Amino acid sequence: MITSIANQKVKQIVQWQTSAKTRRQDGIFLAEGLKMYEEAPTDLIREVYLTDVLLQHLGSRQEKSDIYIEEKLKKTGYEVVSETVFARMSDTRTPQGILTVLEQPAYTLAQLLQTDRPLLVLLEDLQDPGNLGTILRTGEGAGITGVIMSKNTVDIFNPKTIRATMGSIYRIPFFYTESMGEIVGTLREKGVRVYAAHLQGQDYCGSFSFIGGTAFLIGNEGNGLRRETAELADSYLKIPMEGQVESLNAAIAASLLVYEAHRQRHMQKG
Amino acid sequence: MITSIANQKVKQIVQWQTSAKTRRQDGIFLAEGLKMYEEAPTDLIREVYLTDVLLQHLGSRQEKSDIYIEEKLKKTGYEVVSETVFARMSDTRTPQGILTVLEQPAYTLAQLLQTDRPLLVLLEDLQDPGNLGTILRTGEGAGITGVIMSKNTVDIFNPKTIRATMGSIYRIPFFYTESMGEIVGTLREKGVRVYAAHLQGQDYCGSFSFIGGTAFLIGNEGNGLRRETAELADSYLKIPMEGQVESLNAAIAASLLVYEAHRQRHMQKG
Repeated sequence: MITSIANQKVKQIVQWQTSAKTRRQDGIFLAEGLKMYEEAPTDLIREVYLTDVLLQHLGSRQEKSDIYIEEKLKKTGYEVVSETVFARMSDTRTPQGILTVLEQPAYTLAQLLQTDRPLLVLLEDLQDPGNLGTILRTGEGAGITGVIMSKNTVDIFNPKTIRATMGSIYRIPFFYTESMGEIVGTLREKGVRVYAAHLQGQDYCGSFSFIGGTAFLIGNEGNGLRRETAELADSYLKIPMEGQVESLNAAIAASLLVYEAHRQRHMQKG
Repeated sequence: MITSIANQKVKQIVQWQTSAKTRRQDGIFLAEGLKMYEEAPTDLIREVYLTDVLLQHLGSRQEKSDIYIEEKLKKTGYEVVSETVFARMSDTRTPQGILTVLEQPAYTLAQLLQTDRPLLVLLEDLQDPGNLGTILRTGEGAGITGVIMSKNTVDIFNPKTIRATMGSIYRIPFFYTESMGEIVGTLREKGVRVYAAHLQGQDYCGSFSFIGGTAFLIGNEGNGLRRETAELADSYLKIPMEGQVESLNAAIAASLLVYEAHRQRHMQKG
């Protein structure tokens, strides 16, 4: 059991929690909590840390999910740490007592496009890690096939993003691009229609069909899409807004659009 | 100009920033930023603090909104503070340099129901201030007529909530209730259909009509709705979810529902 916060492994975890650069160099990300451990693909798991308190709980409660987790722990192995050590390792104020170290998954653009009717979210310079995680979570719920981000978008392996995905990080393919303009060109060549969510949009999202291959371009929280990027899209679209509302939160806008696509695609089936 | 953080007014502001109880006792809330000052109803404004730096900027830039703000400042009055003092008063890491002290608006339940086809959001024990603010902002965009909260819901005058509303706090009527059960009963008597967003819902939100008076019951982030409350609703409904997603963020769920109502109500008109 690790009981000293001076332990090298503890220092390493703290670095991974706080430095996107170190995570990238090592190809590692961290996921906290039981749900995130439970849903983690076993082949990506590198290390698991849990508190002695949690270990005892799992053994004594023996609920169905506890038994599943105990079996999984036997396969993946784990290291027990004291509560003080865990508090140091953790990114949250009320840690659940389990932290998983995983290998960063990587996808190619080709993989993201290997689908019949892509439903993609393209994010340009999104900065809020919670927004990004929420978009992955809601996106999975709406049936998106992937997320493409400009290179200045917040790190998808940020602990706050990982937490907000509630496990969708394991299942939604994603890709960082040096040039969103090139991506838009490639998508259009492949017959994917690209819609720029834009306050200057002339038509509401409900007046387009998202049944074929569809990509939604969402801009930075404060500044929206760059003009050069928006101009490359097939169409501008806007979300209807009543009252004096000038814009919506980026995660809300993305969620409304992907669920509008889901609604249309589902209606067609039914 | 206030230059000392020991000033009584500075101490008072810090108390209002951090204590919901003090805000309630004094009937006061705070709003930071130019947009929040610009949109603030003049009759609610009690005090305005701004930095000397911002005051100079406003004078030198003279953009249209700057001129509007300068005119408004003449009407409401203001107190200049140093940047150090403002940093102490501010709840944000990168303050804009203007803070407005306002009287808390208050609405009666009767006021919230004085509308032809109410579109209400009922929140039970929501805890995240950002979620609450986002629900007000998106709700205004979707044309809701009010928000009703259980008394254990986070304080709507929390600075994080106010910031997330982006001004909707000034325009959306709201009401805290001791008993959500009673509210549901009152609404049903008045012909408002109450829908409980619930994972055990049998029917998807798209299969109901929200064109008449409608209220959406949304539960706590971690635990969802209390069973006793959910059972009082006319219907359970669920949001369709693909993949392995078990639930959506509370603000996302509320946003999808109010915008589904907006879509239906708008279609009918067109």
